[in-house]
Amino acid sequence: MRIFNFSAGPGMLPEEVLAEAQKKLLDYEGSGMSVMEMSHRGKHYEAINAEAEALLREIMNIPDNYEVIFVQGGATTQFEAIPLNLAKYGAADYVVTGNFAERAFKEAQKFGDYKEVASSADCNHTYIPKLSPSNFRKNIDYVHICYNNTIFGTKFDKVPDTGGIPIVADMSSCILSEEFDVSKFGVIYAGAQKNAGPAGATIVIVHRDLLGNESKNCPTMLKWSTQVKEKSLYNTPPCFSTYVSMLVFRWIKKLGGVKAINAINKKKAKVLYDAIDKSKFYSNKVEKEYRSIMNVPFVTPNAELDDKFVKEAATVGLTTLKGHRLVGGMRASIYNAMPSAGVDALVDFMKKFEKENKK
Amino acid sequence: MRIFNFSAGPGMLPEEVLAEAQKKLLDYEGSGMSVMEMSHRGKHYEAINAEAEALLREIMNIPDNYEVIFVQGGATTQFEAIPLNLAKYGAADYVVTGNFAERAFKEAQKFGDYKEVASSADCNHTYIPKLSPSNFRKNIDYVHICYNNTIFGTKFDKVPDTGGIPIVADMSSCILSEEFDVSKFGVIYAGAQKNAGPAGATIVIVHRDLLGNESKNCPTMLKWSTQVKEKSLYNTPPCFSTYVSMLVFRWIKKLGGVKAINAINKKKAKVLYDAIDKSKFYSNKVEKEYRSIMNVPFVTPNAELDDKFVKEAATVGLTTLKGHRLVGGMRASIYNAMPSAGVDALVDFMKKFEKENKK
Repeated sequence: MRIFNFSAGPGMLPEEVLAEAQKKLLDYEGSGMSVMEMSHRGKHYEAINAEAEALLREIMNIPDNYEVIFVQGGATTQFEAIPLNLAKYGAADYVVTGNFAERAFKEAQKFGDYKEVASSADCNHTYIPKLSPSNFRKNIDYVHICYNNTIFGTKFDKVPDTGGIPIVADMSSCILSEEFDVSKFGVIYAGAQKNAGPAGATIVIVHRDLLGNESKNCPTMLKWSTQVKEKSLYNTPPCFSTYVSMLVFRWIKKLGGVKAINAINKKKAKVLYDAIDKSKFYSNKVEKEYRSIMNVPFVTPNAELDDKFVKEAATVGLTTLKGHRLVGGMRASIYNAMPSAGVDALVDFMKKFEKENKK
Repeated sequence: MRIFNFSAGPGMLPEEVLAEAQKKLLDYEGSGMSVMEMSHRGKHYEAINAEAEALLREIMNIPDNYEVIFVQGGATTQFEAIPLNLAKYGAADYVVTGNFAERAFKEAQKFGDYKEVASSADCNHTYIPKLSPSNFRKNIDYVHICYNNTIFGTKFDKVPDTGGIPIVADMSSCILSEEFDVSKFGVIYAGAQKNAGPAGATIVIVHRDLLGNESKNCPTMLKWSTQVKEKSLYNTPPCFSTYVSMLVFRWIKKLGGVKAINAINKKKAKVLYDAIDKSKFYSNKVEKEYRSIMNVPFVTPNAELDDKFVKEAATVGLTTLKGHRLVGGMRASIYNAMPSAGVDALVDFMKKFEKENKK
């Protein structure tokens, strides 16, 4: 029996994507091979690689002057690749709105003049700081933001105005969940394993004008320009992860694109936040305008009940609901592939649990 | 219909491994999730990760004073990770026996005093140079070799004597194909996609005493010590690739271990080399003592017939036999997962083709 897995990542994949991968696992479209067995220089994989890029361009409406590559190493590798690729000034400003935003900042600091210019740490990252061009220094390479904060359940309500400085955005936990105007960003990057596919593939979307500014210390394998030139095939790519990501892109397109899936996501999130807000038993501490529609942290009146909630929910097929240790309580990650039925089942369980445990 | 795929990499996987992965693709052992969907911090994936390491230690007989990690980025990322991790002197000697050995050398040169001390380029890499401790400099961090040369079809006949300098060996195309005395190496590394699993996972086996010698320019994500400390879970790992690699390790163990599979490999290679050697139509240019048992390049009397061979072989389900452009002709990669029946079918086809095309 398939369960509803509220994991923050790797997260659920659409069942029909898994079924398609399963069907063709030993023989991909009459090739007589699994996608895991084929040369990345052969016609079958080259078609998969090209379709992955073309579909992502289509569903995200990525302008032609942006490059799209699929690389290895996760967003964590990009935390270092970013300052090493965008090193004209060797300086950039970071907005620290959570754990991954902070990790990105800390990794960059080794390489030059990287500064935290705004933070939400004063209130345990329950909001997004207001930003305007005056927040940022002149003559820097970029402003780094983490658009959706997986652990704290916040997201930017709009793309900040940096006065023309390129924005580099970690979108690991929100890519493809809502429509973004890509032209407002210099770089968008995301590990696939939350909203776009399985772990192992990492998406980097970069404005062409930003290429060619690598530090001399940038390893070849971290250079975006290497992979851009080779169409993500500089060395053997994570073929199967890219393939399943391509299937996810097809699934999104079939559903009506990112706009359609965003409507579903907003509805799922509303059902869950309404259940929390209407109850006096559950609460979510995030300022409403900055609430994530992907990651929803919440608590019961005490930590003991939180533990009980997580354990009992698991017994009815609602799993991985334990909140991150930096926040506590519960966290429901409701990425694109989480069916509405999963959120409905969670809300039903919440009501039942409240009834049974309210004093 | 499954074909016999002689690709140099990614290569074939054992059919029973693929069947097992297929069976559990939507529900891994009653978890209600695919391995692609599970948190890498959860009990299911932690068990997979631990079993992968334990099995590899068992089948390769890896001593306790070696660390084993599964990372991302392929052997190509390790070309840079090696000089950045072993940077006590910032100097090392390279033996250049082929294309990947040369790429490893070229990547290292950016970082310090890296020297090519022996090469087989004079005869287009058809042999392995004789080596003794006098070939190597004193006060260097390591000697780098590529144990099996995928493109040229050569392999070291024995582990060279470096007079105590740690050997770093790229074993991407021979790991698990024969028994190695791991204690003779400082570091063994391999992209999984030839003999150990699907692309996306990279194996690094490192003597514990060599850890802690990183250059200050070494990115955190390339540091072996980071992943050793976190048991390959510093960030989200390439879960599905590691899982399928674990299934391959189980398959090798069940067959009787590396010793048993090496006996099969030697037999498969003998059948193919005998067919080449006994014919006046086919030839292989490698000096016999250095012939690879994994990658077998061969040619017909002329390039036109080579092309015809590759095309006609594909029509009968013997695919990806085209040799690398640096060598030409054909190349049959006969990794662990290539069944003996595949080699037999190739030899039968070779005989038929010779009969039809001999002048």
